Amino acid sequence: MSNRLPTLAIVGATGAVGSVMLDILSTRENVWGEIRLVASPRSAGKRLTVRGTEVEVQALAPEVFDGVDVAMFDVPDSVSAEWAPVAVERGAVAVDNSGAFRMEPDVPLVVPEVNRAQVRNRPRGIISNPNCTTLSMIVAMGALHARFGLEQLVVSSYQAASGSGQEGIDTLRDQTEKVAADRTLGERAGDVRAAAGDLGPFPAPLALNVVPWAGSLKDDGWSSEELKVRNESRKILGLPGLSVSATCVRVPVVTTHALAVHATFSQEVTADAARQLLGAAPGVTVQDDPAAGEFPTPADVVGTDPTWVGRIRQALDDPRSLDLFLCGDNLRKGAALNTAQIAEVVAEEHTTG
Amino acid sequence: MSNRLPTLAIVGATGAVGSVMLDILSTRENVWGEIRLVASPRSAGKRLTVRGTEVEVQALAPEVFDGVDVAMFDVPDSVSAEWAPVAVERGAVAVDNSGAFRMEPDVPLVVPEVNRAQVRNRPRGIISNPNCTTLSMIVAMGALHARFGLEQLVVSSYQAASGSGQEGIDTLRDQTEKVAADRTLGERAGDVRAAAGDLGPFPAPLALNVVPWAGSLKDDGWSSEELKVRNESRKILGLPGLSVSATCVRVPVVTTHALAVHATFSQEVTADAARQLLGAAPGVTVQDDPAAGEFPTPADVVGTDPTWVGRIRQALDDPRSLDLFLCGDNLRKGAALNTAQIAEVVAEEHTTG
Repeated sequence: MSNRLPTLAIVGATGAVGSVMLDILSTRENVWGEIRLVASPRSAGKRLTVRGTEVEVQALAPEVFDGVDVAMFDVPDSVSAEWAPVAVERGAVAVDNSGAFRMEPDVPLVVPEVNRAQVRNRPRGIISNPNCTTLSMIVAMGALHARFGLEQLVVSSYQAASGSGQEGIDTLRDQTEKVAADRTLGERAGDVRAAAGDLGPFPAPLALNVVPWAGSLKDDGWSSEELKVRNESRKILGLPGLSVSATCVRVPVVTTHALAVHATFSQEVTADAARQLLGAAPGVTVQDDPAAGEFPTPADVVGTDPTWVGRIRQALDDPRSLDLFLCGDNLRKGAALNTAQIAEVVAEEHTTG
Repeated sequence: MSNRLPTLAIVGATGAVGSVMLDILSTRENVWGEIRLVASPRSAGKRLTVRGTEVEVQALAPEVFDGVDVAMFDVPDSVSAEWAPVAVERGAVAVDNSGAFRMEPDVPLVVPEVNRAQVRNRPRGIISNPNCTTLSMIVAMGALHARFGLEQLVVSSYQAASGSGQEGIDTLRDQTEKVAADRTLGERAGDVRAAAGDLGPFPAPLALNVVPWAGSLKDDGWSSEELKVRNESRKILGLPGLSVSATCVRVPVVTTHALAVHATFSQEVTADAARQLLGAAPGVTVQDDPAAGEFPTPADVVGTDPTWVGRIRQALDDPRSLDLFLCGDNLRKGAALNTAQIAEVVAEEHTTG
C-alpha cells in the first residue's frame, strides 16, 4: 500500500495504439502519477502530449523501468518477449498487447468485464491483452456465456486497416485516393489492382476490395489471426473445449473491426432475452432496430469505447443459436482501452493494498 | 423441332444486369436468332449494341412477345409478376431474375450446374433465376453436397454495391471520391457519414464502411436477403430441412460478392478432398495457396464466369465441417450468366426437339 499514485511506463508510445492510449489516459486524471513514454531509439527525443503536458519519449533501456509500477507494451512480439521480463525484473507489472505471452499457461489473458479476477493470477508478473479481433466480440460473448453456456462460435470478420498499424491506415488512404480518380474501376478483373499501387502490409489491394487474409500462415491453411480468435476466446472464457471456426477478412475501413457471429449455446436463447441481457452488460451497447435503420457500422462506432451489438436474431433452424453483428474500435477496446483497464486494476491493488 | 434459331427477348435490357447480358450474348453467336431488347417506355428508342449490331429498345407491351421463344426478365418483382405471365401467354418461356416467382412450388429455381433437369419442370412456363448472393456459393456447395451430404450452412456475406443496381455503383463512386479528399476521416464516429453525402440505396455510408443490411425487413429481425439465401439454397439443393443462418453485409466493392461459409456435412470431409472435388467441378475455380498469397478477392474475380473458392479449411473442432471463402461476379454468374445458361437449356430443347 502506498500514498503516492503509481508510475506508468508506455512502451510503444509513438505507434497507432500508443497515440490512442495517450488520448485515453488524458481522460483518467487520478489513476497515475508519473507517466513515462518509451519507444525505439529512432523515436527517442520526440515530445508527445499526455494529460495536457508535453513529455519527452525515452529510448527503450532497462533503466527506464526503475521505479515503474506498471509497464504497458504495444510493440512487436519479439520486442515484448525480450523487454517485458526486463520490466518485471526492475519491479514493474507488465501488461502486454503483443502475441508473445498470450497462450502461456502462467500468463493470464484478461478482459476486465469477463475475467477481471485473473489479473492477480500472474506468477511471471506479466498480464496479456487479447488480440483486437477477439476483443471486438468477447465482452458480449462473455456476458451471453455466463447466462446461456456457450458451446460453439462461427466468426467472420470485417477487419479494419489499422489492425496493421499506421502503415495499414496510410496504405488504405493512398489506395483510396488512387481508385477514386477513375470511375470505371472495379468492373474488370485486375483493374483495381493495377490502379491501387503499393499493397503496403496487405497481400492484395484493399481499396474497393476485401482480402480474406490477416496475419501469417499456420498449419492446415489457417491464418494466425483465425487461430488467435479460437485460442484466445477459449482461454478468456475458460472453455478449453469451445468449438470455434473463424474466417478473418480485411475490409477497406480505417478503424473499427466488425464481426458476424453465429453462436450456439447449451440452452435455448431468444433474441429478446439476448437483447435484454446485453443491454444491461457493462461495456456493451445494443443498437438493434433495423426497422429504423439502427445497427452498428464501423464508421459510426469508431472512437467509442463499448462493444456495439446489433442484428440479434435467433437462428431459424436452432433455438439454441443466435446470429449477431458486432463492432468494436480495434485501437480502443481492441487494444489501448483494454490494456488501460487491466493496468488500472493493477493500480487499484497498488493504491488499496 | 425447328430449323430456325430461337428468338430471345431481354426485358430490362438497359439496367446493370442487362448490359452485362448483352456482353455475354455477344460471345454466344449460334444460340439465338433474333434478339429483341425491351425496357420501360422511358428507355424505349435507345439503341444498344448486341453481337456487334445496333438494336433499338422497344417499350414493354404484350406484342413484343409475339414470336418470342424465350423471354428473360431482369426487372423489379412487381414488373415480373405482371409481365412474365403475359410473355408465357404469347408463347414464350419466361426466365425471370426477380424474386416474384422463386419460391412458388410450380416454378423451378435453376442453377444448371446443380439442378439442370428442373428446367423441364415448368408447368407455368416460368423458370426462376436465384438471387445473386445464393448464386455466389451454390455451384460450389452443390458439388460438395452431392458427395458429402450438406446438413448446415453458416454464411456471412461481403456484398458489392452493384447488388443495388447502377444506383448502388454510382453511390459508392460518389462517396469514394468524397472521402478520398480528406485523409483524417474514419477515426472519429460519424465523420465518414458527414463527408460521404447521399446514402443512395444504402441505409448507411458505404465508402470506408461496411453495412450489415441488404433488402427489406422480414419477421424476427431477418433481412429479405438473408432469408433468400436460406430458402433458395434449400430449394435448389432439394433439401427442405437444410439448416441455414446468413448475415448479409454490404461492403465498398463495386461488383462481385464474397462469402465466408461454414458448411457442415453428414460425413467427414478433409480440405484436400474438398479441394480436389471442387477443382473438377464445372463452373468452379479453386484458388487456394495462401503461402503464395493465392486466394480469391472481388477485385481480381470481377468480370469472370466461375465461382472462385479459396481458404478451404477443415474445421479444427469438427471433421465434418469446412470453412471456405468464395467470390462470384454478382452481375455475371449471380444474374446475367445464370439466366443466359437457363435460357440456353430451353433453346436446346427448342432446336433439338
